[in-house]
Amino acid sequence: MNNHIQPVELAKTYRLLNHGPTVLVSAQHQNDRDVMSAAWACALELVPAKVSVVLDKSTYTRKLIEKSGYFVLQVPTLKQIKLVQALGSISKTDHPEKLENCHTPLFQFADYDLPMVEGCSAWIICELIPEPHNQLTHDLFIGKVIAAYADSRVFRDGHWYYHEVSDEWKSIHHVAGGHYYSIGDPVDANKT
Amino acid sequence: MNNHIQPVELAKTYRLLNHGPTVLVSAQHQNDRDVMSAAWACALELVPAKVSVVLDKSTYTRKLIEKSGYFVLQVPTLKQIKLVQALGSISKTDHPEKLENCHTPLFQFADYDLPMVEGCSAWIICELIPEPHNQLTHDLFIGKVIAAYADSRVFRDGHWYYHEVSDEWKSIHHVAGGHYYSIGDPVDANKT
Repeated sequence: MNNHIQPVELAKTYRLLNHGPTVLVSAQHQNDRDVMSAAWACALELVPAKVSVVLDKSTYTRKLIEKSGYFVLQVPTLKQIKLVQALGSISKTDHPEKLENCHTPLFQFADYDLPMVEGCSAWIICELIPEPHNQLTHDLFIGKVIAAYADSRVFRDGHWYYHEVSDEWKSIHHVAGGHYYSIGDPVDANKT
Repeated sequence: MNNHIQPVELAKTYRLLNHGPTVLVSAQHQNDRDVMSAAWACALELVPAKVSVVLDKSTYTRKLIEKSGYFVLQVPTLKQIKLVQALGSISKTDHPEKLENCHTPLFQFADYDLPMVEGCSAWIICELIPEPHNQLTHDLFIGKVIAAYADSRVFRDGHWYYHEVSDEWKSIHHVAGGHYYSIGDPVDANKT
């Protein structure tokens, strides 16, 4: 784990998702691990910090979350766009070697048996709040944030610094079919 | 209503929200109308098209939605950033003249008694799917999309054309305290 990775105050976790990036969702049950891409992830509450993410019934990651009760939302960067697209395009159900075939670089935080993707800008570790109705009817999974980390080169002191680093750090925002937008310029509503 | 505003196929509605823009939420009950800003809005299902949005119990717009059963999610543009910030900063509960004081330009689509904000890039008209648990516990409101429209200068044939129009059309993505990012450049995962 590189020493740029620093904890994020739980009450500031929403800021990691507030600008609507496409995320990577990780989960692990025993020694079985998966990572998938998801565009439908959102902050749900400030304190206690909660998030929501929509996970289709066909996804393998969802099954691991249902078994283990934990998941990670990660904010990938423009540099990882091919990885994000690949992890969102094939399923471990059909491709048991998905993570290896996609050359997914993983690491672990001490204390958590969860696979983290190297090179992301932020990692949000969540405990599933079991809600059978939401999961079955809406494919909606709600998590309580138990820890969050960010790469301090691009997020520190509760703020993104996309404008201070190279473009490869930018968040990516999927529209459809592999077409994304990177995040753009900072704009201050109080100054414009 | 300007003639650039064209219907969006319901199955493509998710693309209006997929890149995670901050939205404006409108509602009306009898002659009482309100508009608020929200960053926690998300697509929830492709077909039938559904969306979710988190609305705090303190908001006046929420009360109108609970009474009327309908709401609108709109995608505002960089040109409207001061309006978005104002509509997200004050409540009609304390400021009954909020919409007038914020100089909110409204129009209506025929068939819908709902206030639409002029100058947005897209409008998603939703019928509330009543879910008391989600509304009370998570402040989470789920809507079935019954119609969607976009300004064809920036969204047409199911695609955004941010890169073909001036910056003032760009979506805005709130982080915190009036600090936003505008959406950036298109990136194709299949070509990079």
